[in-house]
Amino acid sequence: MALEKVKQGVKGCSAMVVKIGGEDPRKIVHALKVGVAMAPVSLIYYFDLFHDGYSTGSGLYAMWAINTVAVVFEFSIGATIGKGVNRTFATLLGGALGVGAHSATSFAGNTSESIMLAFVIFFISGVATFGRFIPKLKARNDYFFLIIIVTFGLIAVCTYRGEKLIEMAEKRMFTVLVGYATVLVCCCICPCWAGQDLHTLVATNIHTLATFLEGFGGEYFGTGNKRHEMEGYRGVIDSKSIEESLVNFAKWEPRHGKFRYWHPWEHYLKIGRLTRECACKIDALNGCLNSDMKGSLEIREKVKGACTEMSRECSKALTEVAEGMKAMTRSTHADPHVKRAEAAVTNLKWVLQAPIWGDAHLLDLCPAATVASLLMQIVACTANVVDSV
Amino acid sequence: MALEKVKQGVKGCSAMVVKIGGEDPRKIVHALKVGVAMAPVSLIYYFDLFHDGYSTGSGLYAMWAINTVAVVFEFSIGATIGKGVNRTFATLLGGALGVGAHSATSFAGNTSESIMLAFVIFFISGVATFGRFIPKLKARNDYFFLIIIVTFGLIAVCTYRGEKLIEMAEKRMFTVLVGYATVLVCCCICPCWAGQDLHTLVATNIHTLATFLEGFGGEYFGTGNKRHEMEGYRGVIDSKSIEESLVNFAKWEPRHGKFRYWHPWEHYLKIGRLTRECACKIDALNGCLNSDMKGSLEIREKVKGACTEMSRECSKALTEVAEGMKAMTRSTHADPHVKRAEAAVTNLKWVLQAPIWGDAHLLDLCPAATVASLLMQIVACTANVVDSV
Repeated sequence: MALEKVKQGVKGCSAMVVKIGGEDPRKIVHALKVGVAMAPVSLIYYFDLFHDGYSTGSGLYAMWAINTVAVVFEFSIGATIGKGVNRTFATLLGGALGVGAHSATSFAGNTSESIMLAFVIFFISGVATFGRFIPKLKARNDYFFLIIIVTFGLIAVCTYRGEKLIEMAEKRMFTVLVGYATVLVCCCICPCWAGQDLHTLVATNIHTLATFLEGFGGEYFGTGNKRHEMEGYRGVIDSKSIEESLVNFAKWEPRHGKFRYWHPWEHYLKIGRLTRECACKIDALNGCLNSDMKGSLEIREKVKGACTEMSRECSKALTEVAEGMKAMTRSTHADPHVKRAEAAVTNLKWVLQAPIWGDAHLLDLCPAATVASLLMQIVACTANVVDSV
Repeated sequence: MALEKVKQGVKGCSAMVVKIGGEDPRKIVHALKVGVAMAPVSLIYYFDLFHDGYSTGSGLYAMWAINTVAVVFEFSIGATIGKGVNRTFATLLGGALGVGAHSATSFAGNTSESIMLAFVIFFISGVATFGRFIPKLKARNDYFFLIIIVTFGLIAVCTYRGEKLIEMAEKRMFTVLVGYATVLVCCCICPCWAGQDLHTLVATNIHTLATFLEGFGGEYFGTGNKRHEMEGYRGVIDSKSIEESLVNFAKWEPRHGKFRYWHPWEHYLKIGRLTRECACKIDALNGCLNSDMKGSLEIREKVKGACTEMSRECSKALTEVAEGMKAMTRSTHADPHVKRAEAAVTNLKWVLQAPIWGDAHLLDLCPAATVASLLMQIVACTANVVDSV
């Protein structure tokens, strides 16, 4: 019975590992990399290679190395570098402030020194905490402020003096460097670039919209059905926060692959915004697809040609853009498709202007008119996306 | 010159503080609370009140207290409790695993012990890192896995034995408890509840949609203009990630205000999803507002009555729901408005069916038809939101 449960548990776990690993094998590689980084760092201190006295109980430097590796080692290179840089500068600044506060107050008597120290700690912690609420700083430097608070508090109340303090700082710095070095080496094995991920994400999102539009004509005018793949656009609408964090990470990354150091990462936010706008219109279009009001067949037949053409050409244009992004080439193949989609819009307007609708009720025309005008909006959005890339 | 710059800097800073504080004064209160918590914790160790030998340089326990306060003290009670619980259990589990690994390998010779230890550290770190990728666990227990890695690595290579180890663990535990106690006391001054924030956010989002719909009739049919407040719905579309994190925090919170312990927090995600769906339709409607294709005046006059009614009644229904949520009462005042909006839909269908459109081109009808059918979709969405609350 218990054995049965254990078996089931193991089965469930391995299924999950296979699933997550199948979606993105780099996650398994990352877990292995963290393991590989932790083992030597721990052993350095186990063998007391740097004679810091950990094994005799008087020092605790091992903690700094282990902490550094565990905290700084993030999935993408950008996130790792960002955290490392923030941590380093915050430690230095916090430490300097701490030493400053300590020497400024140490001339006073014991009681007044402690009162002054308490006030300074209160002030610096408060200011640093408030800094975490400033939106721009929060996105990139949240960790910076956290480490300032920790380091400053620690150093300010530290009663070491002079040489002893410098010796301690040196040892700690060295330990942290050992941690950084290990992380850097392990990072270089199969690196995961946030910039690459961002690029792929934006391109994939555009491709997802193209998939919907490709299927839409056939679906709405009743000649095919590929519902399942078409629902993907919902994920596009929700992708803002992940795009923003990837942009923040990507900014830390050095030149890699086809991305230069000053790659315009902010620009992806603009493309992403336009893509999401387009996805919103597509959601409304999807509402028409699911609606039971489909209008008269006759009228749908009339607009079918132009609407299918608009949808198909937009899809082709977006596909070209997505493929071009993936290949990192500035493709001009999308433009003719946009042109053709715009021609289809003009064409549709002609069809709609011809006085052939005399008898029908507007209620029958309503669904077709809605689809037509949403598709016109989508053509405009597509043109924006194509222009922005 | 330099003085001028300093002056400008101070001005800029104070303007920012006033802006952020004006939006949410609790942020300033939180910064003060962190300062208040840090000062006594630091001084305890400055005066060596617990005789842990920090001032003589042989102990580093102060760090644990300062670290605990700085890391665990989050803005909302739920986030603070969540982090504290994760940290505590991760430390206990990591420590137990470390002691286990240490005693399991310590019978072997020095070299083989170190090889075994390295392998165990590699394995545990890898598994814990992988755990951070499991979506469900990542949302609630990311910090848990991080602390497991840190604690386990530290304890496994620790060469203290027996009594000394227990003494160390006891002291550290006590220090951490001092940190927790300070945080808890400070939390209780003007507490910020994630649950309350979530509730307000969802209600405000619904209210934002109501504001758009209230203005829409007047704006589209040209009798008023209140563009500025109407743009707020864009923020609603992007609110998914913040809602999700607030739900995760809220689950940790004890009974507070009108929220019981088993408050159905997950349900807010459903309301949020429906609200966002509605916001997407509103975005399409906004596209019609900005479009230069407005159709003939005559036709707009025909649909004006019903469309304005739909938009206004939906707005009233959503306002009732939002007000009801804010007051925590299950209001039935929204239902009549939904009924009236649905009656307006039927009415509109009648208007559209009347054969009075004989002469007009469909192109002229297109914009009005689109607005009408989007408003019908919005009525359906509104009914869903009202039902879900």
